[in-house]
Amino acid sequence: MKALPERIDAHRMHGGWQYRYRHPSASTGTLMTYSVFVPPAAKDGRAPHVVYFLAGLTCNDLNFTQKSGAQRVAAELNLLLVMPDTSPRGDEVADDEGYDLGQGAGFYLNASQAPWSSHFRMYDYLSQELPGIINAQFAVSGRESVMGHSMGGHGALVMALRQPGRFRSVSAFAPIVSPSTVPWGKKAFTAYLGADEASWAAWDSCALLRDGSARPLPVLIDQGEDDEFLDSQLQPERLAQEAKARHWPLTLRRHAGYDHSYFFIASFVEDHLRFHAGYLNA
Amino acid sequence: MKALPERIDAHRMHGGWQYRYRHPSASTGTLMTYSVFVPPAAKDGRAPHVVYFLAGLTCNDLNFTQKSGAQRVAAELNLLLVMPDTSPRGDEVADDEGYDLGQGAGFYLNASQAPWSSHFRMYDYLSQELPGIINAQFAVSGRESVMGHSMGGHGALVMALRQPGRFRSVSAFAPIVSPSTVPWGKKAFTAYLGADEASWAAWDSCALLRDGSARPLPVLIDQGEDDEFLDSQLQPERLAQEAKARHWPLTLRRHAGYDHSYFFIASFVEDHLRFHAGYLNA
Repeated sequence: MKALPERIDAHRMHGGWQYRYRHPSASTGTLMTYSVFVPPAAKDGRAPHVVYFLAGLTCNDLNFTQKSGAQRVAAELNLLLVMPDTSPRGDEVADDEGYDLGQGAGFYLNASQAPWSSHFRMYDYLSQELPGIINAQFAVSGRESVMGHSMGGHGALVMALRQPGRFRSVSAFAPIVSPSTVPWGKKAFTAYLGADEASWAAWDSCALLRDGSARPLPVLIDQGEDDEFLDSQLQPERLAQEAKARHWPLTLRRHAGYDHSYFFIASFVEDHLRFHAGYLNA
Repeated sequence: MKALPERIDAHRMHGGWQYRYRHPSASTGTLMTYSVFVPPAAKDGRAPHVVYFLAGLTCNDLNFTQKSGAQRVAAELNLLLVMPDTSPRGDEVADDEGYDLGQGAGFYLNASQAPWSSHFRMYDYLSQELPGIINAQFAVSGRESVMGHSMGGHGALVMALRQPGRFRSVSAFAPIVSPSTVPWGKKAFTAYLGADEASWAAWDSCALLRDGSARPLPVLIDQGEDDEFLDSQLQPERLAQEAKARHWPLTLRRHAGYDHSYFFIASFVEDHLRFHAGYLNA
């Protein structure tokens, strides 16, 4: 018998509802928080498709909820948006002094190393537990897409690549596409997965494309050219090259002057939702 | 010789730029902060009109900047948005333990009472100093409108009513229209203006309409019916009645289910900007 998620916030918005929930998670062994935008009931009675948004380092479920402006477009397109938190949290949960490891920095994987392995199981949470909750809580179509930002862009890509057939499309703003080879990813993977780099490939988008197990799906990536992390942490063209070599439908757009912030996300989120709606409705 | 405002933040957004500035203010005798959205250059070369947004209690220049989604519409309509702070701030500035008095709660007036009168001169700042800075800093059309939320809805209405002819239109989300008769306003006016209520009328929208000095201009007010402050602090129908009695063009819309939050503002900000653009372009 599962405890129902507790609704801890509700706001009418764009004719629909912006909700926030908290629930005890079997995956992480902690209380987890997520936000949901439920679009207004469709005139033709169609159930909404679901789009997950995975946030970046230091964020939680509220950043995209408050700053993206996505709900306006989701209301128009009859999309139900789900914004999970970026990690387990709480006094009993391991943490690190850096902003890029521990609470707020779960990297959407299952940790194998102590002390992280007891709670940091975001992949199980997002691949199994949360979709089960959402599908039970709301009358949705059963079709899903996934998107994310930075660490959450990595999360969205890994979610889609590791679960062939689950998502109709995937998109990302300024994603970490090759975590095994950049400072953010090397620090996190060493801590969560251990020093043996052979275990990292299962959580690395570029490696997942190279190993041939992933099935092609439509990918949209937007990248700001004035993003301070572009050269050191992101380098999305590396994923674009892997995709091109395998004839994947990946579009990488570079935008002059844009940075890593939610002002960048807000500027292009409409394109992402229309991209997903196209494949979800097909 | 005036010090130029210092630019302390810049983000590309919706093809334009979201800026933040800080400058020493002659009006308040403090450093003041404001945000500006500059729309992309118009194809026809037209200079943008200016729309001011005045924020509510506890807010600063960033709430509307980050949460409203207004920049998307402003970019389309060629509007330059100005988001001022809600009060002077700093260690040398008087404050109160309550959220509804002192720093973050300037009520857009000139205080006459100690200790507030030395810095709390937001009306001078917004009626004279800041427009002078904006008009010098940016190539704007010279046409202005003003909008605001809650305490800032009061501010927008008072700004428009006290300066006949300056603004083409005024709009508000959940404004305090009769501060002289509600708890927020009575507390603030007693502190800033003194116990003699005769001095309050000059800063009260309903009173300014009644005294007959204000010149009619188009007014749009949106109010959420589930706003927790509706009955105790807001009561916008009081202003609508004063306006109706004088044949003013005031539209008051009530929205079932909406509350006092920025989720409400984000849901209707597009209507407000299109309303202002209609009069600014006329």
